[in-house]
Amino acid sequence: MNENQTEISSLGEFGLIDRLTEAITPVNEATALGVGDDCAILHYDGDKDILVTTDLLLENVHFDLTYVPLKHLGYKSAIVNFSDVCAMNGTPRQITVSLGISKRFTVEHIEELYAGIRLACEIYGVDIVGGDTSASHQGLVISITCIGDAPHGKAVRRSGAHDTDLICVSGDLGAAYMGLQLLEREKVASAGRTDFVPDFAGKEYLVERQLKPEARRDIVKALAEKGIQPTAMIDISDGLSSELMHICKESKCGCRIYEDRIPIDYQTAVMAEELNMNLVTAALNGGEDYELLFTVPLTDHEKVDKMEGVKVIGYICKEELGSAMITRDGSEFPLRAQGWNPLADADDSAN
Amino acid sequence: MNENQTEISSLGEFGLIDRLTEAITPVNEATALGVGDDCAILHYDGDKDILVTTDLLLENVHFDLTYVPLKHLGYKSAIVNFSDVCAMNGTPRQITVSLGISKRFTVEHIEELYAGIRLACEIYGVDIVGGDTSASHQGLVISITCIGDAPHGKAVRRSGAHDTDLICVSGDLGAAYMGLQLLEREKVASAGRTDFVPDFAGKEYLVERQLKPEARRDIVKALAEKGIQPTAMIDISDGLSSELMHICKESKCGCRIYEDRIPIDYQTAVMAEELNMNLVTAALNGGEDYELLFTVPLTDHEKVDKMEGVKVIGYICKEELGSAMITRDGSEFPLRAQGWNPLADADDSAN
Repeated sequence: MNENQTEISSLGEFGLIDRLTEAITPVNEATALGVGDDCAILHYDGDKDILVTTDLLLENVHFDLTYVPLKHLGYKSAIVNFSDVCAMNGTPRQITVSLGISKRFTVEHIEELYAGIRLACEIYGVDIVGGDTSASHQGLVISITCIGDAPHGKAVRRSGAHDTDLICVSGDLGAAYMGLQLLEREKVASAGRTDFVPDFAGKEYLVERQLKPEARRDIVKALAEKGIQPTAMIDISDGLSSELMHICKESKCGCRIYEDRIPIDYQTAVMAEELNMNLVTAALNGGEDYELLFTVPLTDHEKVDKMEGVKVIGYICKEELGSAMITRDGSEFPLRAQGWNPLADADDSAN
Repeated sequence: MNENQTEISSLGEFGLIDRLTEAITPVNEATALGVGDDCAILHYDGDKDILVTTDLLLENVHFDLTYVPLKHLGYKSAIVNFSDVCAMNGTPRQITVSLGISKRFTVEHIEELYAGIRLACEIYGVDIVGGDTSASHQGLVISITCIGDAPHGKAVRRSGAHDTDLICVSGDLGAAYMGLQLLEREKVASAGRTDFVPDFAGKEYLVERQLKPEARRDIVKALAEKGIQPTAMIDISDGLSSELMHICKESKCGCRIYEDRIPIDYQTAVMAEELNMNLVTAALNGGEDYELLFTVPLTDHEKVDKMEGVKVIGYICKEELGSAMITRDGSEFPLRAQGWNPLADADDSAN
């Protein structure tokens, strides 16, 4: 590498995006919100805001076909996009599906993958409206774009949280990460053996959270039914800590969350113990939970308290107070974004 | 490969897409047109139809960085999507840009690529509103989705051509293909030499057509200004013959085009002679011209005749008459879709 050249890993994903999209100013009236949130917001006219999000999934970077069945992969590929639309308080409506397919895949393989995508679409009421299909020289490439809608003005950004707002999270955290650890462990154990049967007994929930996540459209619906308009929202794909930092940065605020309020499933705790890992670290930094993290005005306290599957884990404070977790013993532990860096590990076996 | 498995190349791109998307029925009211045209058409409400298209570009399948400068690649990656929106009689408005980046690329490389994308967006008045960035183990991956609009009901599909409609084409054909031949020839000639200077003298137009195509938004504007509503439209990415067959298939009609009316640039003709290739074959089957192919009612004859850069090359006839070219000597030559098959050549060097 030339000395005037900068390694991409030195910037990280968000640093690179910031640099590439610097000083981009929308010129179209219809562009209400551009780069930098879970979705772009477009408002062409009428009563709807249109939400657009896209995800690129590459073999051996985002998924390992050693233990991910193609149908599950298809399902998850669709869900991660639906989740981004839900994270704007929206409803996913359409997707386009682009596939790069290498020679070792047959029509039947791709049908399996597509069956998973179609199942997710069926369950979530989403239409497949287009795509692109091409040969790939190196493994499977999946690029999905999702379009959704929200009533005009009701899409929730990352930037609207205010001092004293309550921080809420749906479901439980860390299970998908533990599922990944489990799958990786069984992969190592199975290497070179044909008689190997992976042992997931008592840990089915972890495996399911990793292989077959869901988008929390039910939470978006429940919020609307209860008349709660979140002030900021994001989905947890890179870990609670990282996502909370996004909200704080965009909203120019700080936060306090309580360690003992972070929702964690029993299986997650057992697995952490088995692997001798810190449970709270897994819940804070383990990604792919696809739960919703959102803030609501303090006045909605009673309403969110009554919501099933939603937990208040802390509150928003002034920016100068920083972002921290209050541990069980009452001390403050500064939050850091240790989410997965998709650019950290870019080797290039083919080039 | 198991004997019950089907090789993807046996179906081809369109066969595979047909099989995967079989019996997909949109469930959302907003989905006006799904899979199978240049764009999907969405109508959320209000006065606009929303158009969505997506393209996946993979290194060494769709582009060869030996002779494609990164800035040109970025420009072209955006343009091919704009072209699909123009092919619906629409205006491109927003794009999302997803990149898979392998380790040999630096920040400066990606900035070059992005500079090309941004230049195209600037010229065409399009906003970059999102994307995804990731490591790739498999060279450069570019996935762009474009959103555009057209006045409600004015988006033009492939399916609206009628008997007696005139077939029109913008610009000239075959030049991008000849540009590719030229670049490939110089690549071979340069192999292993450090002192090599490629010779493009007198062939600049061909190289430009290959490396820096444009989307014919000017034609879409001119059609609106002249009050012409095409009955069917498509952009020429896979070759005139292939695209015309798409219109005929979707519109359930046949066609006649005249060999001597196919617009061909002088440089294209010279290059074909030099390479000892059949010029008309290149114009019929050479791809990547990104010109617009459209049909208009016979009553618009005078109007299209007056349009600059548009040529009437034939007419639509009844389906049972088939699709044919009338050669210079007056004989009929049946048209076949010999466009580029992006799935024909899927080897898998890394897996």
